[in-house]
Amino acid sequence: MKIAVLPGDGIGTEIVSEAVKVLEALDLNFEMESALVGGAAYEAHGHPLPESTLKLAKEADAILFGAVGDWKYDKLDRPLRPEQAILGLRKNLGLFANFRPAICYEQLVGASSLKPELIAGLDILIIRELTGDIYFGQPRGRRVATDGHFPGAEEAFDTMRYSRPEIERIAHVAFQAARKRNKKVTSVDKANVLETFQFWKDVVTDVHKEYPDVELQHMYVDNAAMQLVKAPKAFDVVVTGNMFGDILSDEASMLTGSIGMLPSASLNSSNQGLYEPSHGSAPDIAGKGVANPLATILSAAMMLRFSLNQEAAAQRIEAAVQKVLAQGLRTPDIYSEGTTKVGTAQMGDAVVKAL
Amino acid sequence: MKIAVLPGDGIGTEIVSEAVKVLEALDLNFEMESALVGGAAYEAHGHPLPESTLKLAKEADAILFGAVGDWKYDKLDRPLRPEQAILGLRKNLGLFANFRPAICYEQLVGASSLKPELIAGLDILIIRELTGDIYFGQPRGRRVATDGHFPGAEEAFDTMRYSRPEIERIAHVAFQAARKRNKKVTSVDKANVLETFQFWKDVVTDVHKEYPDVELQHMYVDNAAMQLVKAPKAFDVVVTGNMFGDILSDEASMLTGSIGMLPSASLNSSNQGLYEPSHGSAPDIAGKGVANPLATILSAAMMLRFSLNQEAAAQRIEAAVQKVLAQGLRTPDIYSEGTTKVGTAQMGDAVVKAL
Ligand SMILES: CC(C)[C@H](C(=O)O)[C@@H](O)C(=O)O
Ligand SMILES: CC(C)[C@H](C(=O)O)[C@@H](O)C(=O)O
Repeated sequence: MKIAVLPGDGIGTEIVSEAVKVLEALDLNFEMESALVGGAAYEAHGHPLPESTLKLAKEADAILFGAVGDWKYDKLDRPLRPEQAILGLRKNLGLFANFRPAICYEQLVGASSLKPELIAGLDILIIRELTGDIYFGQPRGRRVATDGHFPGAEEAFDTMRYSRPEIERIAHVAFQAARKRNKKVTSVDKANVLETFQFWKDVVTDVHKEYPDVELQHMYVDNAAMQLVKAPKAFDVVVTGNMFGDILSDEASMLTGSIGMLPSASLNSSNQGLYEPSHGSAPDIAGKGVANPLATILSAAMMLRFSLNQEAAAQRIEAAVQKVLAQGLRTPDIYSEGTTKVGTAQMGDAVVKAL
Repeated sequence: MKIAVLPGDGIGTEIVSEAVKVLEALDLNFEMESALVGGAAYEAHGHPLPESTLKLAKEADAILFGAVGDWKYDKLDRPLRPEQAILGLRKNLGLFANFRPAICYEQLVGASSLKPELIAGLDILIIRELTGDIYFGQPRGRRVATDGHFPGAEEAFDTMRYSRPEIERIAHVAFQAARKRNKKVTSVDKANVLETFQFWKDVVTDVHKEYPDVELQHMYVDNAAMQLVKAPKAFDVVVTGNMFGDILSDEASMLTGSIGMLPSASLNSSNQGLYEPSHGSAPDIAGKGVANPLATILSAAMMLRFSLNQEAAAQRIEAAVQKVLAQGLRTPDIYSEGTTKVGTAQMGDAVVKAL
């Protein structure tokens, strides 16, 4: 078993180090190999996703990813910007199924913007399609408009699209995930406006026939953005496209108040996967040793579960994280009075000790 | 001056009646004429936006709109569904500038999902472009995929697009609105992925050169969805495209906890406008006399201000609404212990009395 370790930029290096520390402490039999990605790779090799990094990622059974991006790359041409690395990995490895749990940890209820009674016990799973939609649809670009409100004017355009098999496979992922949970799927669309999402709704409805034991609800994306604020606990599994999933999964993570705790997994059809925290590269706190490594450590647990077939080890990590929280250890992002403030490495060490 | 009154479906009729009552009580010199729209128009004339309704709307200086839609029309072909009426009005009247204030009324802080300190005093204005983007972009439809992940498969597609003048005019609206407020504009895009929104960002940056006294911030849509939850008061004016604006304006209204209080305005370049509450047709409570008419009454105030040049009358209505809130009158959606529960008509009567 081989893990590609891609720390990336900003706090990426610090948080991935702690996850590697935890993986090493498990003393399992797998190989880890690191490579540069994002801005760091651009600086060294002139490209955010160098051939060698892509090759390593393709050969590995799983990828442990930190974060990419920094304001200093904002002026680069789009194909050279750090985030192209993550889009390139998703596309090249066919990582179509993104799992974004939004969980509110009992001890961290107070960190949420929401009133405690609305958020305590929250456990929803957002499943976002990750290789289709307007993210990758062609054609796209700039041109002179030939119709619309201002024919003759300069315009930019993109193509939203989904094919039946793309929707089918992500719908199966969602229904199967719901079977292991509370058996309820909310499919989010904008069928009242978009052809793509009328089709999405139709295909999800078809696939649902194979899962009569799972409840299916359809919801418009604008309403979903509201219901997440109003009554987040009413959701179990949410499945949606790439663009809507980008927005709703971030909204849902922030609702918990502790995005620094939330892992994510992006899988392809052979269960090869990329695992990364739900938060970004936070260049403002990079190098200060204060970033929360728990989302990355929990992403490593998801990696053990989904791609490396090591359920017991995954549970050991998750239990260890629960334990350090119970011990009152907190990085600054989740700190509150009466708890003990620790740095990135201390938090990693505490998890290792708690294993 | 002529007002087209289009109550629509669900609670639309009840809430618009109260707004009309308030307008009549002002004893100003304008003509009001009603017409069917949405499901009600479909039932009567076989189309959600009959020619006669469209004609009335075009001739009027302003449109007072209730709400459209009901689950019972979900099975109709898309062009016949109630929401096509609202899309048709926007398109035919060129109502490109949508104003969606998200305001938290002092007396209603407790109705929010958010902790009081995060939401008290909230006053943000979301300006959504309303006639472009993926809502109206052509081509769109179904076809056989010729490339992508599954060539040969059935697919559906839509086109996202914005031209330079479309972005320029909404940017001007946003900067001018900010000048009358706290002089800060957040332009929301997804420039890291979409050609359309890289262009959006570039054009907004260009227009900003004419408004050096206004601060401009760019934010990705996923981040905006998070920051609205984390620190909504950090925003002043938010400007964005049609699709992102649909999602973010609904998220922001729900954050206040009292979407039943929030008006909206959709204007074209001659200040002709459509005014409607931010909430929907709520078929579940239609006909029960319990719907909150205040969002519609406040929409009538916006109408007086923006399209009918009656600032004093607008302020009279707004002051009257403040007064009934101070009197402790509440429809069920905003009711809390210690206040007086009233129905739709009682609330309308109270506003008239408070004028
Ligand atoms: C960096 C960006 C391209 C990316 C996305 O939009 O998918 C990010 O927001 C995410 O959600 O992983
Ligand atoms: C009904 C629907 C077409 C509409 C939209 O998406 O614009 C609605 O959600 C709105 O925001 O007014």
